[in-house]
Amino acid sequence: MKRIGFLGPKGTFSHEAVKKYTVGKEGFVECDFNTIQDMILSVHNSKLSEAIVPIENSLEGGSAISNTLDMLAFDTDLKIKAELILKVEQNLLAPEGVELSDIECIISHPQALGQCRKFIDQNYPQALLKPVLSTAKAAMDVVSSGGKCAAIGPLSLAEEYGLKVLKSGIQDNLINETRFVVISHDDSDRTGCDKTSIVFSTENEPGSLYGILDIFNLWDINLTRIESRPAKIQLGRYIFFVDLEGHREDDDLKDALTMVKRKASFYKFLGSYPAAVSREMSL
Amino acid sequence: MKRIGFLGPKGTFSHEAVKKYTVGKEGFVECDFNTIQDMILSVHNSKLSEAIVPIENSLEGGSAISNTLDMLAFDTDLKIKAELILKVEQNLLAPEGVELSDIECIISHPQALGQCRKFIDQNYPQALLKPVLSTAKAAMDVVSSGGKCAAIGPLSLAEEYGLKVLKSGIQDNLINETRFVVISHDDSDRTGCDKTSIVFSTENEPGSLYGILDIFNLWDINLTRIESRPAKIQLGRYIFFVDLEGHREDDDLKDALTMVKRKASFYKFLGSYPAAVSREMSL
Repeated sequence: MKRIGFLGPKGTFSHEAVKKYTVGKEGFVECDFNTIQDMILSVHNSKLSEAIVPIENSLEGGSAISNTLDMLAFDTDLKIKAELILKVEQNLLAPEGVELSDIECIISHPQALGQCRKFIDQNYPQALLKPVLSTAKAAMDVVSSGGKCAAIGPLSLAEEYGLKVLKSGIQDNLINETRFVVISHDDSDRTGCDKTSIVFSTENEPGSLYGILDIFNLWDINLTRIESRPAKIQLGRYIFFVDLEGHREDDDLKDALTMVKRKASFYKFLGSYPAAVSREMSL
Repeated sequence: MKRIGFLGPKGTFSHEAVKKYTVGKEGFVECDFNTIQDMILSVHNSKLSEAIVPIENSLEGGSAISNTLDMLAFDTDLKIKAELILKVEQNLLAPEGVELSDIECIISHPQALGQCRKFIDQNYPQALLKPVLSTAKAAMDVVSSGGKCAAIGPLSLAEEYGLKVLKSGIQDNLINETRFVVISHDDSDRTGCDKTSIVFSTENEPGSLYGILDIFNLWDINLTRIESRPAKIQLGRYIFFVDLEGHREDDDLKDALTMVKRKASFYKFLGSYPAAVSREMSL
């Protein structure tokens, strides 16, 4: 049996991501965690074999993403072995017997409330909005509220907490995706359609980032994402998380990464893994 | 009187940022808001003259930062007129009469609890940790708890809610800064030590980001930050938020931005403003 961790409680988008990842795969046991740190440390200590974490555009918190990136860059030597893109759809959920016109109170995570702002303003301008710590907590509160409350959250909450969907797709932006990655001790073999993640820091002088991007340009390697983040104190500067097209075993990528390692003041390889199908970019 | 908005409630780091920004300035009225969107729209509609928002490395949520960037890029034509860097220090706070050894329960925002993980593990391994929606809510809960609970949060909470500081500087990373910006209808005049923020998108082809950075390299303009984010559906690709050294009236920067505008598929100027003194980087 393989234990796989996700940011709980059950019914969140992270839980949906686990279910999407393990569908058709045998022998996974889902384990919910309260914090990204605990979960990633459990992989580090081999109490979990894998953990699924939001890494981009997450509803479940920018803090989750920051924690993931920090843990990967500084605190562990774990690798990214897979990525998956989840379409984030918000739903208005209520107990059986409650109708759209009954709703006087809407409960959800502040971010989910924010994402459905137009829907709420147009349909429930008078409703009491109650922010809670998670969409799962919102579902539980709705269950115990006794009739005039609805929760906003993912479809899986309906199943988990026995609620019905009053209305689906109520988020302002109809296309809204979150990218999750699977963290493990090892990354993945080459498939021919792969991505590679690295983190590096450059000397604190003009043109140093340009010098690194120059390397990818030289070898015709596409960047699919770049993010600068404040480095921790021991580095004293910014670090860059970069996703590239290709696998570490591809000759061009291997040569380019060798050069990046030579030019960067800090460099860490974070893994090669099959590219998920989604809207992609070339930079 | 100038109305300035911040992400409430009172006693949060955003509130500390407002106080730091307005110290020594006359005629500001502080207005707390529940959401970044409401606050920025209030500036857009001139109900507020300014709003202060976290834009980088924020404790008060990655969602706040995402919302700020989205509102600036897509939903308004507001400008950044100032930036300030706040040192984020966490404190253990409790009502008068409660001592360090009395604490059996620690209440705070999940991110603040996560930031003080080592302190908690070492000193209160048995304590019940209670996550709540904000550090201000934690302070209120501690006030009404009756003796065995402490809150974790900014120093200003102590003053706001009549708590005493049991221990200060309890966060794991001793240096932890959040960058805030002030949003208004106009940006700032040239001081000689300025920064400029822009957002742009490039054609979805290899080397296009490199082509833009090439422009800054050519004119010897330092980047101080770069961040890629998923664009909203109407753009269908990623966009880049870039901070540069210099002011829009500087000849070199003006020429470089003219060229960026020509090469980018989407371009928006977000303002020039005096650079805050902090750790800076050159890319």
